[in-house]
Amino acid sequence: MEELLDRVNFRIKLAGEELAIAVVQDYRTQEVLMVAFMNREALAKTLATRKMTYYSTSRRKLWVKGETSGNFQVVKEVRLDCDGDALLFKVEQRGAACHEGYYSCFHRVLREGEWVTQGERMFDPEKVYGGRR
Amino acid sequence: MEELLDRVNFRIKLAGEELAIAVVQDYRTQEVLMVAFMNREALAKTLATRKMTYYSTSRRKLWVKGETSGNFQVVKEVRLDCDGDALLFKVEQRGAACHEGYYSCFHRVLREGEWVTQGERMFDPEKVYGGRR
Repeated sequence: MEELLDRVNFRIKLAGEELAIAVVQDYRTQEVLMVAFMNREALAKTLATRKMTYYSTSRRKLWVKGETSGNFQVVKEVRLDCDGDALLFKVEQRGAACHEGYYSCFHRVLREGEWVTQGERMFDPEKVYGGRR
Repeated sequence: MEELLDRVNFRIKLAGEELAIAVVQDYRTQEVLMVAFMNREALAKTLATRKMTYYSTSRRKLWVKGETSGNFQVVKEVRLDCDGDALLFKVEQRGAACHEGYYSCFHRVLREGEWVTQGERMFDPEKVYGGRR
């Protein structure tokens, strides 16, 4: 495991941590669901548990995706890019990825000079998080 | 254009710049090709020219993808994530995305505890870049 992690370049300094980028893709449809950050510990935990675990730069702690909402992401495939600072995870998404209730966090698309939200909410964020995230 | 750019949160500080994450996906196959960074100027240029333009944190300047290799990326769709610090671009990839000659920069996949390269090189980096990138 250590040798595997040594190949990752945690070069992004945010919130006092050294981070790599995690891109998350639906393993069935290939839709990109979200982008977040991992420190070394978050990546080790993700690989050990097969549940996506990030480092939250706002809460400054490890964050198991789905621990509040139930919307876990189960890892199906892991890829590393050529310069080692970004990882690509293909996952089985339970529920929806976005804390705003949409399946993907990339629900805004550029149309005629404006960001336009596409798609329907799959859940009501207030009911799921009740002010938390 | 300015209002559009104001919705992007260039919160990643690297190489003295304020950057957002750009995830690039093949618009036909949905394969994720690469991840790079954009400052406000790079994003403005990308939207104006429809050719992917990044901020290179190693060379510390704007970088039109394909200017050396000919492997341009033509923008087909642009998306913004919920917290505004990551953009998703669906592109038509000319040639290959990776400077190592592979179609995608994510050519290493995790198999039985090792990063294993998948796929074939589409070009010889030495011939295309001759020491440059």
